[in-house]
Amino acid sequence: MNKGKVYLIGAGPGDTELITIKAVNALALAQVVLIDDLVNRALLAYAPNARVIEVGKRGGCKSTPQHFINRMMIALAEQGQVVARLKGGDPFLFGRGGEEMLALQGAGIAVEIVPGITSGIAVPASIGIPVTHREYTHGVTFVTGHTQDEESPNWSALAATGTTLVIYMGIKHLPEIVSDLLKAGMPANTPVAAIQHGTLPEQQHIVSTLDMLPMAVKQAGLASPAIIVVGDVVRLAKANHQEIETQFAEHLAA
Amino acid sequence: MNKGKVYLIGAGPGDTELITIKAVNALALAQVVLIDDLVNRALLAYAPNARVIEVGKRGGCKSTPQHFINRMMIALAEQGQVVARLKGGDPFLFGRGGEEMLALQGAGIAVEIVPGITSGIAVPASIGIPVTHREYTHGVTFVTGHTQDEESPNWSALAATGTTLVIYMGIKHLPEIVSDLLKAGMPANTPVAAIQHGTLPEQQHIVSTLDMLPMAVKQAGLASPAIIVVGDVVRLAKANHQEIETQFAEHLAA
Repeated sequence: MNKGKVYLIGAGPGDTELITIKAVNALALAQVVLIDDLVNRALLAYAPNARVIEVGKRGGCKSTPQHFINRMMIALAEQGQVVARLKGGDPFLFGRGGEEMLALQGAGIAVEIVPGITSGIAVPASIGIPVTHREYTHGVTFVTGHTQDEESPNWSALAATGTTLVIYMGIKHLPEIVSDLLKAGMPANTPVAAIQHGTLPEQQHIVSTLDMLPMAVKQAGLASPAIIVVGDVVRLAKANHQEIETQFAEHLAA
Repeated sequence: MNKGKVYLIGAGPGDTELITIKAVNALALAQVVLIDDLVNRALLAYAPNARVIEVGKRGGCKSTPQHFINRMMIALAEQGQVVARLKGGDPFLFGRGGEEMLALQGAGIAVEIVPGITSGIAVPASIGIPVTHREYTHGVTFVTGHTQDEESPNWSALAATGTTLVIYMGIKHLPEIVSDLLKAGMPANTPVAAIQHGTLPEQQHIVSTLDMLPMAVKQAGLASPAIIVVGDVVRLAKANHQEIETQFAEHLAA
């Protein structure tokens, strides 16, 4: 029997048009789609002929264990199926795509990586923030604020790089992250933004300063999953933020 | 007269299928396309009705000055034209898209950002390297090795972060970059990859160790523009590298 194939596909940040032609072509071929919890369901329109299996994974709770997802993909491919594994953002940036690729390769299954638009770039862009801007920084760092093993990134070294920091999954540990960045010598009035549901109609965001960020997020009721941007590039956020409280605007001007 | 509009569009890393649906839709509307030197010309098939203006900019030489590109976009939009500004990778990650956005906004021109797949993620992925992988790192940093003002990134702080380093435009200053990273305490046998023309049929790459990188790049004849990846994630590069010289393979095993 012919072995199937698995496409590890980046679904992008949410907007159904922010997916690649290559992903759309792979979804059209798929006989089965394994879709993550955070992926926009409207993208399934690109896979009209596929059986859909939900393999939700959201920050720890009631998720399908990774090894079970791996086994399912292997079993389906061994039955000769074309499998689309649809993951939020890009499969190789905090997507555990590397682990899935290794499991599939280990079982001798053909696997193709289809990159996606990562939220860390497109979500700030949706409010006018370029993650790099020559006048402000020569680079950008993407980190997770919440890791499964509860290890923290080296915030002190990160602050010293002078790169824009884009934090995925940072809401849960926000007070600790902010405290660590301040301790590392990052100025209290460093501009920051937090964006929930970026690129979708229900998008919500706040612009603030580093020291005020936990309060601003709480006040606006922003929740996971959100993207947090720390650095001078936030100054370029669209000027018409009805969301900025006067207090934060004053901080930004300081 | 109606004012036109400018789409700042990410063309992706090269592969004509690694462009978004949103970009394809914008190109279909475009009356004029301003295309960068490094963008795959085959993408112009998505803009069959547009006039094409080449505004090449390649590492300093014989380029169209940025302020001239800005003035051209403004003039075209003021004539009521729909303008697609097609840039390699993502417009907001080392794409000078922020500068173009500000110039357009300053002139009162409507501007829409259309994110693209950045080379720093998709090019490593094309040889099986995930820029993050839980076992190895909690983040990734994108920096330029060559900046117009010739300022260097803080390599010492970058090395201390423990994130994967993805270096754009690093070939020109490669010996200095490697020397700075070694001085910063990064182990000589840190796995590295350099990839030219990533995602295109003419792609070429080498996998090596940090200390051997300049020699390996020279030996393979790799030239700009290339993506350099530094970090343990390079261990996941596809195993069948005919390009790895035995000497480098031995280093990697150490």
